[in-house]
Amino acid sequence: MSKPIEKSIGIVGGGQLGKMLVESAQKWNVRFNILDAKGSPAARYAEAFIEGSLTDVDRIKELASVSDIITYEIEHIDAEALLQLSKEGKRIVPSPEILLTIQDKGKQKDFYKELGLPTTKYILLDVNDIDLRKEDIEKLSGNRLVVKSCTGGYDGKGVLIIERELISKKHLSAQFKGRILIEECVENGKELSVIVARDDAGHVVTYPVVEMVFDPSKNLVDYLFAPARVSKIIEEEARRISIEAVKHLDGVGLFAVELFLDDQENLFINEIAPRPHNSGHHTIEACNTSQYEQLVRILLEYPLGNTSLHSPVVMTNIIGPPELSGDYKLIGHEDLLKVPGASLHWYNKIETRPGRKMGHFTVLNSSLEKAIDQAHLIQDKLKIVPV
Amino acid sequence: MSKPIEKSIGIVGGGQLGKMLVESAQKWNVRFNILDAKGSPAARYAEAFIEGSLTDVDRIKELASVSDIITYEIEHIDAEALLQLSKEGKRIVPSPEILLTIQDKGKQKDFYKELGLPTTKYILLDVNDIDLRKEDIEKLSGNRLVVKSCTGGYDGKGVLIIERELISKKHLSAQFKGRILIEECVENGKELSVIVARDDAGHVVTYPVVEMVFDPSKNLVDYLFAPARVSKIIEEEARRISIEAVKHLDGVGLFAVELFLDDQENLFINEIAPRPHNSGHHTIEACNTSQYEQLVRILLEYPLGNTSLHSPVVMTNIIGPPELSGDYKLIGHEDLLKVPGASLHWYNKIETRPGRKMGHFTVLNSSLEKAIDQAHLIQDKLKIVPV
Repeated sequence: MSKPIEKSIGIVGGGQLGKMLVESAQKWNVRFNILDAKGSPAARYAEAFIEGSLTDVDRIKELASVSDIITYEIEHIDAEALLQLSKEGKRIVPSPEILLTIQDKGKQKDFYKELGLPTTKYILLDVNDIDLRKEDIEKLSGNRLVVKSCTGGYDGKGVLIIERELISKKHLSAQFKGRILIEECVENGKELSVIVARDDAGHVVTYPVVEMVFDPSKNLVDYLFAPARVSKIIEEEARRISIEAVKHLDGVGLFAVELFLDDQENLFINEIAPRPHNSGHHTIEACNTSQYEQLVRILLEYPLGNTSLHSPVVMTNIIGPPELSGDYKLIGHEDLLKVPGASLHWYNKIETRPGRKMGHFTVLNSSLEKAIDQAHLIQDKLKIVPV
Repeated sequence: MSKPIEKSIGIVGGGQLGKMLVESAQKWNVRFNILDAKGSPAARYAEAFIEGSLTDVDRIKELASVSDIITYEIEHIDAEALLQLSKEGKRIVPSPEILLTIQDKGKQKDFYKELGLPTTKYILLDVNDIDLRKEDIEKLSGNRLVVKSCTGGYDGKGVLIIERELISKKHLSAQFKGRILIEECVENGKELSVIVARDDAGHVVTYPVVEMVFDPSKNLVDYLFAPARVSKIIEEEARRISIEAVKHLDGVGLFAVELFLDDQENLFINEIAPRPHNSGHHTIEACNTSQYEQLVRILLEYPLGNTSLHSPVVMTNIIGPPELSGDYKLIGHEDLLKVPGASLHWYNKIETRPGRKMGHFTVLNSSLEKAIDQAHLIQDKLKIVPV
């Protein structure tokens, strides 16, 4: 029995996003069922844990059979299985149709273009046809271009920023297979993110715009902060574009819209994740309603929660170091816990791997500059080391 | 495996305080073992759940055998069993010696008196000797006096405010057994609470003073808020007295110190709870470090966290109505979720009972007055009703 909330939620995926989703709703005793590999971060919090692959149709159906509502915390899952369940009447949020669009970065780009939403200029092609498409590639501007797999990329994998003269079948066919996207690169710009929440009735709210600072060596977010250092006009425009995109997807659920801002103050929509996102972790400590609770509210058809920030905030990912795989320990977390306003989240992953997201921390401070300085000091002390 | 924290915590008691204690540390993957009756609110979050009575020595030992550290979330437990475990080297926080003092309200009063801490004038006696002690009772001032059981009282039970002429063996021996405490009543005053956290090294922090508003019909806290509406001098004096009491208890752990403030601005220490407390629920939403996380930090010998409030806050208990026992449902929680800054905690109790604490909610608002108004509006809509 789980009162006042009787409905159970099934999550396809039990990684850190699933873990924090479950944590956000324990105050309401929401029951979660989870499908993922054994030892996944969220596994121990599941009412029913279903061990299996996220692309195993039978396991997805098993999850649905014990859950009133299905959501997912990762895009690389079997969307066709969800589509079938949806046709059979299961509540799946966001809808599998949206997932099918988003799983393919080519389809995403076409969708933005058709809607007239600003996005960088691009071409779609098969990696084997690169050398035949020289002319189209010539029409893209800039010394460097971005090459992306249309499907399967994740956490900086399947994305390459490359000098235009190095773009050839010879250079790219080892790293990329099948359909790819080549697009213009926004140089000297900023990367922004807007989390959009939209419910069944079409009510929509956004979180304050987040500014992400990338570590080029890892092609991963190094740290991010909110509010973004952008003008009021850009803040509003970023929110407007993001809402527009989610509305036209007919999106119900939580969506992270990533955007570029170039040095001429032009915004470009980059891509959308139809789930809680790394760029919304900070909402746990800095907002009345976290992105995770917000999604639970939408799943349960409850009113949307307030999204305002009560403090400037920095979020830093804690990443598995390049030289270490397997067993590990964390050091420096006691230094972190000494900093007023700092909070640690650890994902309970059994093994570290180079570049793997192992945890994150947030720092709240009424001065954003101080929060960033404190985050850097903490980052210098936190280390994942061999046991 | 639970990284970065390898130690497990055993909690004697799995009620709402235990539940929120566990929830506070899931971001760190702390493992908790819990002893309580089947169906207790925290049961489903336990790594090892031990079903049994909180006064069953064997079950307490079983809990200790699987836990690195022991704490408790209720005072009515077997302190002698903990004392023995402590002598055998088990880390028990707060210490069983403190629990033995606090379990007996007579010993508590003597302790404050010996320390010279302000407390209301009182006498200790056996309920059967009331009529023989008329003269001592005469020396206590006021039209009304407070009668308390020395042991076993909880949540307003075992406490009676009574006209002095009604104090007689005949009137009281039905309701009270054994040793009782009769003390002066602070009329037209305020009830305050200070949560004190003190670690092994003697570092001590307090949370901002809370003001509690009682519902006299239930003898339970109706709502409370922070910061308290008291002068800076009273705020500091309340914190000083509370720290003094905890230091002299040699207290390590989390302590809720309840105080009265009379209309002449005199403070009196009432009693101490050696555990997370109803008057600290609001710290989950309103402080960087909640009272629950603070206790986990102390248990794990981590640095104390920052205790400042980032917003005025109101907390309201949701109490089982007088006419209903057994199965129930909650209505009105969707209205609550519409209020920006309002958060609901539900304790997952299988049955409601008259006066039982079933849940609570907090409201944050930059205006304390508005937060109180909003809390009242929510309270009017939330109802526990038959299924």
